[in-house]
Amino acid sequence: MPRQKKIRSLKELLEIVKKSPGQKVLVLAGAEQEEGLKCVQEGRRHGLIQPLLVGDKKRIQRLCRSLKMPLRGVEIVDEPDPKAMPAKAVELCRAGRADILMKGTVGTADILRAILDRDKGLGRGGLLSNITVFDSPIEKRLMFMTDPAVNISPDVARKADMLRNAIDVAKRLGYARPKAAVLAAIEKVNVKDMPATVDAAVIAKMGESGQFPDCDVAGPYALDIAVSKEAARMKHIEGPVAGKADILLCPDINSANILYKSLVYFSNREMANAMVGVKAPLVMSSRSDSALTKLYTLALSAILAQDQEAQ
Amino acid sequence: MPRQKKIRSLKELLEIVKKSPGQKVLVLAGAEQEEGLKCVQEGRRHGLIQPLLVGDKKRIQRLCRSLKMPLRGVEIVDEPDPKAMPAKAVELCRAGRADILMKGTVGTADILRAILDRDKGLGRGGLLSNITVFDSPIEKRLMFMTDPAVNISPDVARKADMLRNAIDVAKRLGYARPKAAVLAAIEKVNVKDMPATVDAAVIAKMGESGQFPDCDVAGPYALDIAVSKEAARMKHIEGPVAGKADILLCPDINSANILYKSLVYFSNREMANAMVGVKAPLVMSSRSDSALTKLYTLALSAILAQDQEAQ
Repeated sequence: MPRQKKIRSLKELLEIVKKSPGQKVLVLAGAEQEEGLKCVQEGRRHGLIQPLLVGDKKRIQRLCRSLKMPLRGVEIVDEPDPKAMPAKAVELCRAGRADILMKGTVGTADILRAILDRDKGLGRGGLLSNITVFDSPIEKRLMFMTDPAVNISPDVARKADMLRNAIDVAKRLGYARPKAAVLAAIEKVNVKDMPATVDAAVIAKMGESGQFPDCDVAGPYALDIAVSKEAARMKHIEGPVAGKADILLCPDINSANILYKSLVYFSNREMANAMVGVKAPLVMSSRSDSALTKLYTLALSAILAQDQEAQ
Repeated sequence: MPRQKKIRSLKELLEIVKKSPGQKVLVLAGAEQEEGLKCVQEGRRHGLIQPLLVGDKKRIQRLCRSLKMPLRGVEIVDEPDPKAMPAKAVELCRAGRADILMKGTVGTADILRAILDRDKGLGRGGLLSNITVFDSPIEKRLMFMTDPAVNISPDVARKADMLRNAIDVAKRLGYARPKAAVLAAIEKVNVKDMPATVDAAVIAKMGESGQFPDCDVAGPYALDIAVSKEAARMKHIEGPVAGKADILLCPDINSANILYKSLVYFSNREMANAMVGVKAPLVMSSRSDSALTKLYTLALSAILAQDQEAQ
């Protein structure tokens, strides 16, 4: 269900979630981990989520004591077998006892396997992809990019699915008709040497044919054409997306990951990350994420979980 | 010939060139163009270069009058045939009458053909590649990246040549032993799905074997590992390059072009661009480059031409 009003910054997103009634429950799969515990405790302290811990109960309790973390009111589901933790956490989501799934000590491959399990998983037939949300450095609004983390070298069909997921997230944050730019290095289609421009042409044409409802799609665009009105004007590129893109669909994981890290390390941006395309938002926090990025990521997951329920 | 002292910013580069005795001559191929004329006049005004104009003499004179640009002391080589302009400009470089070649109205393909002509061109058997120089947003020093403009999807041999060109430019700006990071999305080699990590491993190993003299090479590195000491520390990645890279070798033109434009439009960085690998630095200014980026580009080309002569 699209939100009525645009959320214009990560800070605003955080405030909205803080004020929302009825906290979402986040299940931490493999909670015997300082980093994960600290993150969910911070989320709890800010009123973003209510944690539910899955793992070796005694070890979790011991770690919390040594870290002086209060466990009052926090439920721990005892599951000492690391191999069984992912399925247990997924099961709690399926049973409606948790709304958000977060990776703790468990392996990435293990948790993905549990999520994508055909019978007991959280799949809904779509694609699992990563969407990053950040404050536009140019205007007072959010921007969305995909996919710096999961889909390595997506073909055009998968790119269309990645775009669908990104549009879904944008709409849930109030971008009723998001503008999406399919990125490449140039604006012309180079059939012979640049597959990214060919994919972009296909996706843009799908957009023109109405295959991404309530979304303007354009490309191939170099990044400047997507985000700078001045650059678009100088290169005589027009249309609703030129210079005003909300969503940046990157050619592959290399370009998306480099863009993500350029924003963090060269532009000092905070980000919020969501793994979407399954029934419960998935949080896979990276150790090098800042404390604020972790908090924004929890807030984003909480708001996506709210809307999930409303659907 | 490597410079003795590191140049630590684009501003410093500009000042050094301004103070250098003996201006380099820049030949503008196809000078009947407001943008190109303005750029070379600015370079002249700042004492960076002495222009030499190739094109339709009458049209150039008329345009300069209408733009109120003084032509006193500027030589014009009359060549009214657009098809003949690139070869004429290249010939002036070969004859030692010009040190830097700049593209004006002539087509990109035409000027590249003239440059790469086996008998009458400016080739020296190496690779033509684009190096971008910018102020590190993290430390008081320059950074070098390649290749956002020319080499589309280089194989590993070409990447090695691109790195050689970048090392050469870094040394000419005083980076006696540059640190080069070969970028990908992750630090582990994924043989099956991520060719960029495989290429990076090969290039890094070539570096360890001394195949890039006086340069530390490492990779595959995600961008954070290349530029952030903190990120490298947290992910336990060590070595002389981790967190301290001077040179960023990008996987392909998409990722490099997106990084370039992220720096310009999201981080408000100025850049200096050089096309290198031929006997005279080549300037291919983009319309959307800022006035300052154009000036820095001329300064970079002038300093590269100085050293070219000294070789």
